[in-house]
Amino acid sequence: LDAAAMAAAHARHATLTKPPGSLGSLEDLGVRLAGLAGVNPPPLPEPAVVAVFAGDHGVLDQRVSPWPQEVTGQMVANFLAGGAVVNAFARQTGASVVVVDVGVAAPPVTSAENLIEANVRRGTRDLSVEPALTREEATAAVEVGIRVAADLVDRGAGCLATGDMGIGNTTPAAALIAAFTGAAAADVTGRGTGIDDETHGRKVGVVQRALALHRPDPGDPIGVLAAVGGLEHAAIAGFVLGGAARRVPVILDGVIADSAALAAAALAPDAVGAMVAGHRSAEPGASVALRHLGLEPLVDLGLRLGEGTGAVLAWPIVASAVRVLHDVATFDSAGVAEK
Amino acid sequence: LDAAAMAAAHARHATLTKPPGSLGSLEDLGVRLAGLAGVNPPPLPEPAVVAVFAGDHGVLDQRVSPWPQEVTGQMVANFLAGGAVVNAFARQTGASVVVVDVGVAAPPVTSAENLIEANVRRGTRDLSVEPALTREEATAAVEVGIRVAADLVDRGAGCLATGDMGIGNTTPAAALIAAFTGAAAADVTGRGTGIDDETHGRKVGVVQRALALHRPDPGDPIGVLAAVGGLEHAAIAGFVLGGAARRVPVILDGVIADSAALAAAALAPDAVGAMVAGHRSAEPGASVALRHLGLEPLVDLGLRLGEGTGAVLAWPIVASAVRVLHDVATFDSAGVAEK
Repeated sequence: LDAAAMAAAHARHATLTKPPGSLGSLEDLGVRLAGLAGVNPPPLPEPAVVAVFAGDHGVLDQRVSPWPQEVTGQMVANFLAGGAVVNAFARQTGASVVVVDVGVAAPPVTSAENLIEANVRRGTRDLSVEPALTREEATAAVEVGIRVAADLVDRGAGCLATGDMGIGNTTPAAALIAAFTGAAAADVTGRGTGIDDETHGRKVGVVQRALALHRPDPGDPIGVLAAVGGLEHAAIAGFVLGGAARRVPVILDGVIADSAALAAAALAPDAVGAMVAGHRSAEPGASVALRHLGLEPLVDLGLRLGEGTGAVLAWPIVASAVRVLHDVATFDSAGVAEK
Repeated sequence: LDAAAMAAAHARHATLTKPPGSLGSLEDLGVRLAGLAGVNPPPLPEPAVVAVFAGDHGVLDQRVSPWPQEVTGQMVANFLAGGAVVNAFARQTGASVVVVDVGVAAPPVTSAENLIEANVRRGTRDLSVEPALTREEATAAVEVGIRVAADLVDRGAGCLATGDMGIGNTTPAAALIAAFTGAAAADVTGRGTGIDDETHGRKVGVVQRALALHRPDPGDPIGVLAAVGGLEHAAIAGFVLGGAARRVPVILDGVIADSAALAAAALAPDAVGAMVAGHRSAEPGASVALRHLGLEPLVDLGLRLGEGTGAVLAWPIVASAVRVLHDVATFDSAGVAEK
């Protein structure tokens, strides 16, 4: 983060026609994004693109979710047809949606301009009995994310938002959050799509067993992603790194993104400067991860859908925080008296 | 609220391609707006118009704010020139801004297509020594708000948002909230634009004195507005009633709107069904008022600016909640398996 640009944004805020500090955390956000861009005002974070990374999970064999695996691929088709909630939110706010098959078990049946085919492996292995991925596979998935971010920025995106789809993917997210923060499995494992007590108990046990089996070392982020992660988690970690490298803000969606962001931060601590926490997922691990990253979410409405829905909802707020630094008159220019 | 439309929206939610309940409070909001419209899906709440009601306050004589009274009129000019924060947020989100002079002390120096001249009185009297308004003036201001809402809906608005401008207007807001909820002055009186301890102490004392002097009766809402209100507060109460009468959602901004909403609810309890709490103002009275109304805010970012800024930020979220009911595919139509 560029200190001079941040100081300029901070000073600019004091001259604008509003009481100092009256925009609350949006003022801090505008200042930080000036620091990210290295210039004040920072560019308007538009157009926004949400990239939905899709993958499947061998751990589904442990019955951690009541939904069948084929839903992942079916939802990919739904995203491409424009029928999912993230499409509706994107339509409302003016964001666009791309879908990245980084790890879906079933080959996509459709092709589409906004489908990026970058499948590293057709689903992970069962992390409760063996590493979910090899180091090479985890690295390849991270590289997919980096490349998608770079391509989107090259094609004009001014803001990136993370999205995910993967039946069973809150289980690796919980394991990643436990591994990177040291929290107990029971404190970071939630009910995902809304599982019952019995399934939840089994899911906590699966996360505990995976941590005991792999003893993931948070100092080796690729090793953690390989042992207990998912292909979309690894790709989102790369996507965050790719956005940060291009100094473009990356709005994190929910618990999957938050777990991936921990991996990104472990790989490159400076990347946290590009992260904007879009919302607070209802999953308990999300709050643990955001606290570890030092991020405050913009929206907190009990969403637990994923897909990028929370990130897309937050995007107009992010853009508004930046637009203040572009558009608002100063006391001098508007002829408004100061106190 | 129409129970059949709400039941239809609730049933529709269960068929859409997402886990049941995964949109958290946005599902409840969509259901409620179906009830308000009497049809499912309810109309998309667009276009959105924020009406900024401006007024001045005799209580400024008690030095409850360090800002001079002329700032109210100067900010009206700033709104009309497009230079205020609410203009920037509206530009970002696609809302439009109208300004209503219902009580500014200085006659507006500019005319503009989006300025509604409906001045009832050039500022209130000092509520700490006499009633701020006569009952007739309070009623006239309420009627201004009703008329503005009706006119905007007639001209096509699908969503109304409240805004306010008035140096000193958090003092009458605190008094209104105390009067309608029974809360103590000290618990609802905040720092407004950011006043120091001494000014805050004086402000609490002013609210206490006003309550002791007028003993406002919450069963007589017009009497309360006249005794301790402001012209923009009364007009916003009417604006809420006008929107509710036309079954159009009204997004409440911060503490001024929340205090006015209490008056509207006291006049017509059913009007609460049209109210959407846009955000939680940093002013303590806002939370007290919202709790009394049973409303949960959509955005909670420490804003304390007013103008309608929090309401405009929340509008894309409201629209997204409704759009889900229009756009999202069902499990059947998308060929997605259920659990």
